[in-house]
Amino acid sequence: MTWQARNTYRNRIENELFERVLPFWERFSPDKIHGGFFNNLDRDGSVYDTTKHIWLLARQVWMFSKLYNHVRPNEAWRTLAANGMQFLRKHAIHSGGQVYFALARDGSPIYQQRKIFTECFYALALAEFGRTSGRIELIREAHRMVELIWSWAYDWSKVGRPVHTGAAPMQMLAVPMMLLNLLDEVMPEQDCDSEIRECYRRIKLHVHGDEVLEHVAPDGSRLPGPVGRLLNPGHAIEAGWFLQHLGIRLKDRDMQDLALRMVRSSHALGWDKQHGGLYYFLDAQGFSPVQLEWSMKLWWPHCEALYAHLLNYSLTGAQQDLSDFASVSRYLWNHFVDTDHAEWFGYLDREGRVTHRFKGGPYKGCFHVPRALWLCWRLLNNWPDADPKH
Amino acid sequence: MTWQARNTYRNRIENELFERVLPFWERFSPDKIHGGFFNNLDRDGSVYDTTKHIWLLARQVWMFSKLYNHVRPNEAWRTLAANGMQFLRKHAIHSGGQVYFALARDGSPIYQQRKIFTECFYALALAEFGRTSGRIELIREAHRMVELIWSWAYDWSKVGRPVHTGAAPMQMLAVPMMLLNLLDEVMPEQDCDSEIRECYRRIKLHVHGDEVLEHVAPDGSRLPGPVGRLLNPGHAIEAGWFLQHLGIRLKDRDMQDLALRMVRSSHALGWDKQHGGLYYFLDAQGFSPVQLEWSMKLWWPHCEALYAHLLNYSLTGAQQDLSDFASVSRYLWNHFVDTDHAEWFGYLDREGRVTHRFKGGPYKGCFHVPRALWLCWRLLNNWPDADPKH
Repeated sequence: MTWQARNTYRNRIENELFERVLPFWERFSPDKIHGGFFNNLDRDGSVYDTTKHIWLLARQVWMFSKLYNHVRPNEAWRTLAANGMQFLRKHAIHSGGQVYFALARDGSPIYQQRKIFTECFYALALAEFGRTSGRIELIREAHRMVELIWSWAYDWSKVGRPVHTGAAPMQMLAVPMMLLNLLDEVMPEQDCDSEIRECYRRIKLHVHGDEVLEHVAPDGSRLPGPVGRLLNPGHAIEAGWFLQHLGIRLKDRDMQDLALRMVRSSHALGWDKQHGGLYYFLDAQGFSPVQLEWSMKLWWPHCEALYAHLLNYSLTGAQQDLSDFASVSRYLWNHFVDTDHAEWFGYLDREGRVTHRFKGGPYKGCFHVPRALWLCWRLLNNWPDADPKH
Repeated sequence: MTWQARNTYRNRIENELFERVLPFWERFSPDKIHGGFFNNLDRDGSVYDTTKHIWLLARQVWMFSKLYNHVRPNEAWRTLAANGMQFLRKHAIHSGGQVYFALARDGSPIYQQRKIFTECFYALALAEFGRTSGRIELIREAHRMVELIWSWAYDWSKVGRPVHTGAAPMQMLAVPMMLLNLLDEVMPEQDCDSEIRECYRRIKLHVHGDEVLEHVAPDGSRLPGPVGRLLNPGHAIEAGWFLQHLGIRLKDRDMQDLALRMVRSSHALGWDKQHGGLYYFLDAQGFSPVQLEWSMKLWWPHCEALYAHLLNYSLTGAQQDLSDFASVSRYLWNHFVDTDHAEWFGYLDREGRVTHRFKGGPYKGCFHVPRALWLCWRLLNNWPDADPKH
């Protein structure tokens, strides 16, 4: 990448993040009456549903805290994060430390999943906002929650999910990769090398040659049926850069190499040669995935891929990584960026047409877009003067 | 409809049902080792997943029993139904009369929904197979199950679903329409006029002018947010013909008129003027539905519409009903019918391209296609010599 190309990317990303994406959430998401944020925002920022989805509220607290801690101590960002954190601490936790999935506008509970992910995002929010506010007790609370999640992670009967005898024991990629992200985010300075290596060991079970399988048997062998054949290229790419971060932290070349391969091969498998973009789901043996939305192009796999390829390129200097980064960047700016209103569309059909006009929904909020843009911006800001390995 | 057109439709449907659709399930679905049926069949009938989804196993038992009882006493159909019923009775029921949603090939349980629909389809199977086999105790068991379902229907805490304080009380269209279908199918000769009228009263709560809302408040008022604005045109059309059947049974003109209007207006609202076909979901106020698959064209809404329009036309003789029937028929034969292999595709994108090649999946089995074809065939066989009202 030339110095000029680096600057072009950096400036475009900087403008998108600070002038268009963040102001959208700062302006439209705060609930000035009940506190917390609205996450279901239409194309122009208007609220089309007042339900508050906790995955997204917690991630928004994390995001604004992160920006405060790492970009600049902007008081508006701190206030926004504090508002969200206060709402979450007041309403989101219920018995035994579990966290609700959805709340009504006033904070009364609507729905609880029998999984562990809401708790993961809550812990991320606690830890990062703890640093923003200097409240050490929040960071301690985040540590306790990570310990709790760790004890639940591979046995969801502990969070109320019944175990049936016909259900084949399985491991979901989502679990070790999320635990890895928690170790990275909540415990950046603690010695948790053995925990990191345990996640690494479990992630490796999902990598079968070029394929990163979403679900495997506990010993890593393939499971029969569509569940066992499911590929989610964007998810595997996200797991790849999570692993790369920890590989750098542990200076573990094997871990870094695997991370690199996961990103490259998942991109190669997942990219739609005909229409461009990453498929949402694929079947490893070419059957039709049973998910109705398998061929759609979603914003978040592309966000993950944007950063993952740039990170790889910063480490390898390989033309392939730069070229994959450039493809993803082009696809994002040509299809997801809304030039009339700020923030990005989330859902396209296979051919790349926008199918859903909203900017925020039950699974899309102030998270994947600004996280990817911030990570890329940070990397481009610290770009080596000379290209790596050149 | 001319006598000639009637014959053309009748012959085409007869051929499709008896020569192509039913033989597909007869040949490929039976599990000769563990009993019951495979429902996850690829385009050519090969099994791509041995999971047995009980919605579909129960409906297949119902379908083959129905054909045996109403078309001809074909021993192969009875044997098939008996095989399915035996598997269900051995494996599908668990404590308190609830029925599993999915079983492994050998019958061990995989998953249980906290809803009432698996139980409904199980009751349909029991009643219809009870008639096929002459086993009165099965019909009695079906009656007891309907009573149980009736007691659970509007309070899912009784089937283990937690009630949270922020969740707005609501009524789903699926519940009264399914109860109505149970009364029609399981108790065709019993006096249950007051129960039918209770379902009718509740269905009316969902009809707001031209819109049939999927979810309303218990008093019929609109609910806020996407849940309250959700339209599912195919579902409303199905509810329409269920109601028409009971309106005929009770000779209730008001009920019949509402049923007619539900079908006509849902077709008008749900039909894609640009690409043809019925949308899966719409938002009553024009927001993007949050369901990722909202703009897809699914086989079952079109199956329901095929019969609903033909039924209406047989009652009204109105050109509009015939024209809607013809549009749906054309769309079905041009898009869903697989000319290379038997049975129909289930899923198309908005433009009408096949997105999933399989013939059976977790929600598609031996049910909507043969039920609609059989109902249309029966109606066309008994068509009045002169067109109605002509």
